[in-house]
Amino acid sequence: MEQLKKVKLSEIDVTSGFWAQRQRINREVTVYAVRDRYEETGRFGAFDFDYCEGSDKPRPHFFWDSDVAKWMESAAFILAKNQDDELQRQVECLIDKIEEHQDENGYFNIYHTVIEPDNRFKDRDHHELYCLGHLIEAAVAYYNATGRDRMIRLMDKYIDYVIKVFMKDKSTGFSSPGHEEIELALFKLYEVRPEEKYKNLAMFFLNERGKDKIPIAGWCNAKYSQNHLPVRAQRTAEGHSVRANYLYSGMADAVRFTGDAEMMEACKAIFNDTVERKMYITGGVGSSNRGEAYTTAYDLPNDTAYAETCASIALALFANRMKDLEIDSRYADTVEREIYNGIISGISLDGRSFFYENPLEINLADRTRHTSVNEGDRLPITQRQLNFGCSCCPPNVTRLIADIGEYICSYDENRVFVHQYIASSASFAGVQMDIETEYPSLGEINVCIAGAKGKRLYLRIPGWCESFSLNVPYKTVNGYAEIDVDADSFDVTLSLDMKPRFLAADPRVRADAGKAAVMRGPLVYCAECADNDFDLFKVRLDTQKEVASDYDAYFGAPVLEVKGSVAEENTLKALYFPVADVRERAVNVKMIPYFGFANRGESDMRVWFRY
Amino acid sequence: MEQLKKVKLSEIDVTSGFWAQRQRINREVTVYAVRDRYEETGRFGAFDFDYCEGSDKPRPHFFWDSDVAKWMESAAFILAKNQDDELQRQVECLIDKIEEHQDENGYFNIYHTVIEPDNRFKDRDHHELYCLGHLIEAAVAYYNATGRDRMIRLMDKYIDYVIKVFMKDKSTGFSSPGHEEIELALFKLYEVRPEEKYKNLAMFFLNERGKDKIPIAGWCNAKYSQNHLPVRAQRTAEGHSVRANYLYSGMADAVRFTGDAEMMEACKAIFNDTVERKMYITGGVGSSNRGEAYTTAYDLPNDTAYAETCASIALALFANRMKDLEIDSRYADTVEREIYNGIISGISLDGRSFFYENPLEINLADRTRHTSVNEGDRLPITQRQLNFGCSCCPPNVTRLIADIGEYICSYDENRVFVHQYIASSASFAGVQMDIETEYPSLGEINVCIAGAKGKRLYLRIPGWCESFSLNVPYKTVNGYAEIDVDADSFDVTLSLDMKPRFLAADPRVRADAGKAAVMRGPLVYCAECADNDFDLFKVRLDTQKEVASDYDAYFGAPVLEVKGSVAEENTLKALYFPVADVRERAVNVKMIPYFGFANRGESDMRVWFRY
Repeated sequence: MEQLKKVKLSEIDVTSGFWAQRQRINREVTVYAVRDRYEETGRFGAFDFDYCEGSDKPRPHFFWDSDVAKWMESAAFILAKNQDDELQRQVECLIDKIEEHQDENGYFNIYHTVIEPDNRFKDRDHHELYCLGHLIEAAVAYYNATGRDRMIRLMDKYIDYVIKVFMKDKSTGFSSPGHEEIELALFKLYEVRPEEKYKNLAMFFLNERGKDKIPIAGWCNAKYSQNHLPVRAQRTAEGHSVRANYLYSGMADAVRFTGDAEMMEACKAIFNDTVERKMYITGGVGSSNRGEAYTTAYDLPNDTAYAETCASIALALFANRMKDLEIDSRYADTVEREIYNGIISGISLDGRSFFYENPLEINLADRTRHTSVNEGDRLPITQRQLNFGCSCCPPNVTRLIADIGEYICSYDENRVFVHQYIASSASFAGVQMDIETEYPSLGEINVCIAGAKGKRLYLRIPGWCESFSLNVPYKTVNGYAEIDVDADSFDVTLSLDMKPRFLAADPRVRADAGKAAVMRGPLVYCAECADNDFDLFKVRLDTQKEVASDYDAYFGAPVLEVKGSVAEENTLKALYFPVADVRERAVNVKMIPYFGFANRGESDMRVWFRY
Repeated sequence: MEQLKKVKLSEIDVTSGFWAQRQRINREVTVYAVRDRYEETGRFGAFDFDYCEGSDKPRPHFFWDSDVAKWMESAAFILAKNQDDELQRQVECLIDKIEEHQDENGYFNIYHTVIEPDNRFKDRDHHELYCLGHLIEAAVAYYNATGRDRMIRLMDKYIDYVIKVFMKDKSTGFSSPGHEEIELALFKLYEVRPEEKYKNLAMFFLNERGKDKIPIAGWCNAKYSQNHLPVRAQRTAEGHSVRANYLYSGMADAVRFTGDAEMMEACKAIFNDTVERKMYITGGVGSSNRGEAYTTAYDLPNDTAYAETCASIALALFANRMKDLEIDSRYADTVEREIYNGIISGISLDGRSFFYENPLEINLADRTRHTSVNEGDRLPITQRQLNFGCSCCPPNVTRLIADIGEYICSYDENRVFVHQYIASSASFAGVQMDIETEYPSLGEINVCIAGAKGKRLYLRIPGWCESFSLNVPYKTVNGYAEIDVDADSFDVTLSLDMKPRFLAADPRVRADAGKAAVMRGPLVYCAECADNDFDLFKVRLDTQKEVASDYDAYFGAPVLEVKGSVAEENTLKALYFPVADVRERAVNVKMIPYFGFANRGESDMRVWFRY
């Protein structure tokens, strides 16, 4: 089992290009936009703990702590790279309130303090440990960014209480949380403060999973919260897809910190089940709104795709951990699929509004699509929203973008791995590495590495790439080009063929039978009515013809023009007529990156086309 | 405007072949099966009017009178041709109870007598006039079959009461019924008893339509019950599809009995809107479960198709009336499409169980399909049921089959029209006409007509037919072959080309884009897993190759073998892979008549295939 170290946020700067632009909007617009919505909706105010029945304040929901915690974590990642007194003041203010309202015994939870004080740790699905997990992640990020450990100390006190009631007294109503998150958070804390109790508590929750008795009827069943089997016996991705991938991330952390081989087998099998059978081409997972969950293998409907933004983020978290445990480019390929498609489709180009669900097909004529948890929201789910009733996704994508530097490279004593081609400058373990690239608009990647003479450099050859060239000798190892670094200052240029490609889905995917999707580099493309004056469902793509590509500043990536045809209306005025009389005319189908859909108003949209 | 007379049930016998077989099962099995279910569920017992809150008896629903009335009408149509003392006794017994429990003022309604006596004619959607309509139809059918007019007299008394409260006192809570039916029923009564009051009341209800104030929100809006416009101003098929086509049938009757040209324009436009934009290839109409209703033009999803059996019957009623008002074969073509597909798909081959909804695609993996009105039923809607909570369809298909003779021919002084090719022997207006055919299994139709010398005979050339031959001179008039009958005993043979055909849908039908359906003669075909050992969604049909056809006694019609291919699983183990690597293998796709689907257990099923 491998144990690569990731290059940490503090050791790497994103310097230019696609992600630098995204990070600029993220810190200038998004982090404030999410904050404003959370202030308006009472999420920040809830930290005053002064809600009571009949008061004017909005009633806190039991997941509000986690919403704000993810915002704090986002702010911390931004503060790690940018001075921003307003952000820092607001984070400190929130920590003040946590300190003020934390119980003497360490417990902290808004909902269960002001609304159901007698039901602490009684209901497995009341998200107390999930909220704690996000608070821990925020504490760690803020400590890493600022060196201030006050919030870690507050959380440490809470963790001691959790250890007492769950592990010692066993006085709680359940033994593993309904919504996972605490596990990966405890390992994250363990990384910066290697106290065994953190690791032990994380392992306790992992080992308890499958023991709680859960009703098996309905969609909120044992599989829904991955409680159907002990974690080491699990082999398939099941249930609520965010919960699932937070669990799998925690399991991967357990592998990393304990070397648990059985756990590694489970992680590998689950990862394969996901990417070989249950993932949209955009990286979306959890195809059903029923339980926001995985369904059966190859069940990937496009128009009713749930594919929650948070689920794509969660799978990226899992895959990004796996890439350091096994040299296999499919892990970083999956991270790449997510960060260029299913994750950033969840945020508008201007950084102000969001999608919770990320369908691969919109037919505005169908108004029956619906969301399971945000039913009451004002806008149809074909329009991006400023906030959701269940607004987990906005700060999740905010923190992902702010933290993107941590996905780029990892290393051990003799090897340096470049997993994501993001223009950046890194300094770690005596090595200085600069990546220059206009990826994913262009396929040239220049890596300049100093202080690594005698080590081997591994550059990921993306799974989507049909041909590439390198200006130095290499051999291919599990999807990476392995290069001997034979100079103090070593320079290598990788050229990836960015020719647009037509993809088919496994024939067992009913929704995509007879259809093709278009990709260029890591980007999945879609068509919208804004660019095309014909019905998208009428289009047949010509996969034999060349696809034209042209950089578009609005999207920050190329747009495409694909040759195709549309059926013409028949002149018989008959609803049904002989197939031999079908006539088609040629059209140019303009396509945009999938991540950019629904930025120019409501529109029909489509990823998969007949060919 | 034409005014052909239909050859009445008393004037024609179905003699052999497809429909004789259906009628045998109908009178030996179905009419008793429906009766048994109605006895079990308390529908017959409700005619004792002894339900009270807390009693053991099932609570009557306000549409139960109509269920039983349709059963009585079915029994009457059967009694018109077959002695059956048990049936007759039971009809008489029901008439006894109607007589016994009818109010002194003439009112009769189970629900509103035993449950809501104070709310008579208050709620437009409580189906009192709908129930009365079906009771009138039963009364007329029973009178025609037996010469007994007791039930007509009872209904006459009720009608007088309706005239009083609706037309004179105007003391009711609405002025036109929420569920149409009374209009066509009153015209039917007027036909056998030409009293002006019947026609006037029917016209009153037609003319009042559009005047009641209906809430416009939700699906139960003004369009839902065709109340959005005065009937003469309506141009499109709208709302609840059974209500709609019962109304349009009544409007066609009004044209026949009053010569109303404006009404005829409305009927023609609505008919065109239906068959050119809103009808499945099977004849199914009302594509949405939401309001059991028509939606927008070309919105014809296959898997969620509602296409209620009753709606197909209702459209057949409308089209069958229109065929006698205008010489245009499209009307009888539509009747034919319904009686061989969308109507009889609603009843199992053994005559015992039924479909309320008639989808054109079943994917058993999708368990989210649902019915709007029969939600509580025991079986999934992919299995035929013995009865429904809302069990309007079973007796409706029973009466249609028993009455099929009335769809065959019509005439006037100088012309005889054959609309449907059903083996039969007819005697009307001095003419004796015998039709011999194995249609729809074979395309030969022999018509022998005596006593018609000097008249013209019109044989419908089906719209689906690409070539035909006749052994006598003819010219084509609006879809009919017009033949001069120049002998006392005149014999003609029509041969229709029965070669299987591949049909496309108008390209505006999103669900069928790039797909073909297979028909042979008037029969639409489908494939089921029972006959094919591959996933149906993987199939691509080869529309260039010949289709083999073979008579199958189980279905009483030919089954087909169509050449096609299915995508093979790729060897890359990748969920997404280059289109160029897609491999297909040839398969023979076995197809059965659509009407016979779901007779051999639950199965995936499909009508439309990629090609």
